[in-house]
Amino acid sequence: MTQIHALAYARKNRDRFVAELKEFIRFPSVSNEPQRWPDLANCAHWLATHLRGIGLEGARIVATKRHPIVYASWQHAPGRPTLLIYGHYDVQPAEPLAAWQTPPFHPVVIGEDLYGRGASDDKGQLFTHLKALESYLKTSGKLPLNVKCIFEGEEEMGGSPGLERFVRQNRSRLRADAALVSDTRMLGPGRPALGYSQRGNLRFEIEVGASHHDLHSGNFGGVIHNPVQALSEILADLHDREGRVTIPGFYDQVREWSTQEREYMANVGPKDADILHQAGVSKEWGETGYSLYERITIRPALTFNGITGGYQGPGIKTIIPARASAKISIRIVPDQDAREIERLFREHVARVAPPNLALRVRTVALSYPALINRNHPAMRAAAFAYGRGFRARPVFLRSGGSVPAASIFQRHLGAPTVLMGFALPDDHAHAPNERFHLPNFFQGIETSIWYMAGLARLRTTSSAHKPQEVWLR
Amino acid sequence: MTQIHALAYARKNRDRFVAELKEFIRFPSVSNEPQRWPDLANCAHWLATHLRGIGLEGARIVATKRHPIVYASWQHAPGRPTLLIYGHYDVQPAEPLAAWQTPPFHPVVIGEDLYGRGASDDKGQLFTHLKALESYLKTSGKLPLNVKCIFEGEEEMGGSPGLERFVRQNRSRLRADAALVSDTRMLGPGRPALGYSQRGNLRFEIEVGASHHDLHSGNFGGVIHNPVQALSEILADLHDREGRVTIPGFYDQVREWSTQEREYMANVGPKDADILHQAGVSKEWGETGYSLYERITIRPALTFNGITGGYQGPGIKTIIPARASAKISIRIVPDQDAREIERLFREHVARVAPPNLALRVRTVALSYPALINRNHPAMRAAAFAYGRGFRARPVFLRSGGSVPAASIFQRHLGAPTVLMGFALPDDHAHAPNERFHLPNFFQGIETSIWYMAGLARLRTTSSAHKPQEVWLR
Repeated sequence: MTQIHALAYARKNRDRFVAELKEFIRFPSVSNEPQRWPDLANCAHWLATHLRGIGLEGARIVATKRHPIVYASWQHAPGRPTLLIYGHYDVQPAEPLAAWQTPPFHPVVIGEDLYGRGASDDKGQLFTHLKALESYLKTSGKLPLNVKCIFEGEEEMGGSPGLERFVRQNRSRLRADAALVSDTRMLGPGRPALGYSQRGNLRFEIEVGASHHDLHSGNFGGVIHNPVQALSEILADLHDREGRVTIPGFYDQVREWSTQEREYMANVGPKDADILHQAGVSKEWGETGYSLYERITIRPALTFNGITGGYQGPGIKTIIPARASAKISIRIVPDQDAREIERLFREHVARVAPPNLALRVRTVALSYPALINRNHPAMRAAAFAYGRGFRARPVFLRSGGSVPAASIFQRHLGAPTVLMGFALPDDHAHAPNERFHLPNFFQGIETSIWYMAGLARLRTTSSAHKPQEVWLR
Repeated sequence: MTQIHALAYARKNRDRFVAELKEFIRFPSVSNEPQRWPDLANCAHWLATHLRGIGLEGARIVATKRHPIVYASWQHAPGRPTLLIYGHYDVQPAEPLAAWQTPPFHPVVIGEDLYGRGASDDKGQLFTHLKALESYLKTSGKLPLNVKCIFEGEEEMGGSPGLERFVRQNRSRLRADAALVSDTRMLGPGRPALGYSQRGNLRFEIEVGASHHDLHSGNFGGVIHNPVQALSEILADLHDREGRVTIPGFYDQVREWSTQEREYMANVGPKDADILHQAGVSKEWGETGYSLYERITIRPALTFNGITGGYQGPGIKTIIPARASAKISIRIVPDQDAREIERLFREHVARVAPPNLALRVRTVALSYPALINRNHPAMRAAAFAYGRGFRARPVFLRSGGSVPAASIFQRHLGAPTVLMGFALPDDHAHAPNERFHLPNFFQGIETSIWYMAGLARLRTTSSAHKPQEVWLR
């Protein structure tokens, strides 16, 4: 019962764990901001050192085209299963800075919450498993199963391109019986959830440009086409009045679920009112005929993330802007194919765009939806672990978000990915005042300790546990 | 024939005049940018000192709610008419800075053009009349007629609110037989034009806001309304497919012009190809049934000047933005009423905006269209002066832009405003690389000298020439 010692260790060291997590959050590892790229390298270095410090082996930094992958393993449990633990050390931009009540990269504990960019998404959740591993290794000197840790720095850039390439090229070396990803949410405090479905995500930038520079609206207003107007028309045209996406063929491959599955979802999932409350809005919007939980999980969605064009300073500048652009994300569901939806979107936009302005559509990133069998032994082991760690049975929850890693592991390694979320719906992920609920951090560590113990009893496949070096690209 | 000496003086001093104009342009007097406001005060001070230096009297700086008015006069020609000379010393923002080939506030002469923000709009054009006045005063010690100069610093803020208040409150003291405004364009090099019509301008800001902060598009995409989407729908809805504005009642008061007037316009005005060439675009857009020149002068236009919302940095941030906003300008024509169009616009936007998002519409500024009789003696005198200054007969041209001063003088002083433009269509007003064609500067000074001589021979009204102090608010 090595987990008993591990649990005791974890409880004794909570304050230090929080202090270390603060150190981790202090790196402003915003993967999308070029001026932060040195911070990502520093953060990866810190993380690799930390992995070495807690007793993992072969800790290393693997270069990709942009931000490195941090890898380490412990493979001294022959005959036991192999668990692939994933997380990402990069974070979303902190903007708008003025909306933060504490500085985003100077983590502060207020009450039971740790505030800071990345506190919940994903540094805090990633850290729960590191502290579980440490708790085993520092008490009994070993783990109950084989572990491979893979932490990337490109998740928030969309699509995890470096991870996908790395996994594809190191398929046999990364083989595992299950993958463990903590980058999703619980239903609420004390109400754990296991993810079994998530949407894929296509991210686009559209730019509409005129051949001219900014022009005086008095001299030319009314005779030349306005990129802001053309862009508005393109965007307005993407939904009908009922909130459905108008791209022809968009819904053709969307899977219709059985009444049984939809009833299960209605029983365990968040209610409409819960979702509106979390969003802080009073009125819903969107496709009729589906609950809000269904709309964000089993239905696709097209969302505008940003728009920009022309003069945006104080007062007015009476110009016809030279160009306007928008950022768009499309969340896709089984059985939509990411490449097919990309094609349909591009064709539709090209069709509706006015011919007298230049249109540029850029696919920024692309990820697939993922779906895991709720009855897989790795999922059952996770449910058991939650029962011990949180003293509550988890529900099986679908996620509206997209962790590309889950579909990458599913597609390239054939490994079922357990989405063991420790975040809360009001953690303000991607928003100002992001926070991590510290009781979830502590109970998450214990859940992880129990999970490793439980998974260790399962039968393994022949090759996954074989110790081997990861081939470095 | 005092104008002969004045003309000789003007020719001899061209280099110095350009050097002084450069000094004037060096003030970054961007009236819309709060950080530039001290520069406007400095610029006004410089201008008042300059007026004193060339021999005008009572030069003073009159405080308004924001940027001061600079006033001076010379009223020692009893029995002669009084001319009110107007200009504005404020300029448009220089953004986008990267598009400038020379620094906007370090004026440079390249070939026959002087480059810099405000070179043409309006510092250079304003300066032509100052140098004409100087040429008289420094040679014969007097002017052929009475002159009142009024230069404002709020024209580019829209609607010239301080000027309107000042003129309204000093109606009798500002009385004049004619007003002279040089803030419009010629047809081309060597092709002078006299403005007799301009559009009014309504400027709005629309903001669509959700009650929430920025939200994760994975967690909430598909169930709550997106301000960028709502704003796009509102904007897209403001024009129909034929380029007509859809606001109900918008065209009701638009004056239909006689075939004769439209034929005159077709004869003297720019051709469609000229306007497209000036704009640098290959294809037109807009209301059918009207030439491009008609569309920008006798037809109203609704133009989007800028749009902003959500994440606009590099890469992607998968959020549902909390708000989105747009800047809109509506150019109105006789006999549309500015207040009535404001009301129609506000009602329409409120009607089409989705009820579940907060809508805020702000009227930033508002000005009326202006129309001057082409046969007024002050206009005929101007045509004569162009014939001498440019050795070319001017055409009478309508302007698509809006110089609020013209309608303010017309409405409050009853003075016909002569729009004597010296700018060229490709001077890049309001755009990067603004420039002033120096031959126009020199010929403009001579035209102004001839104009004062010609106007001096006209009959005056009884009260306009009576020397009196302007009452300071």
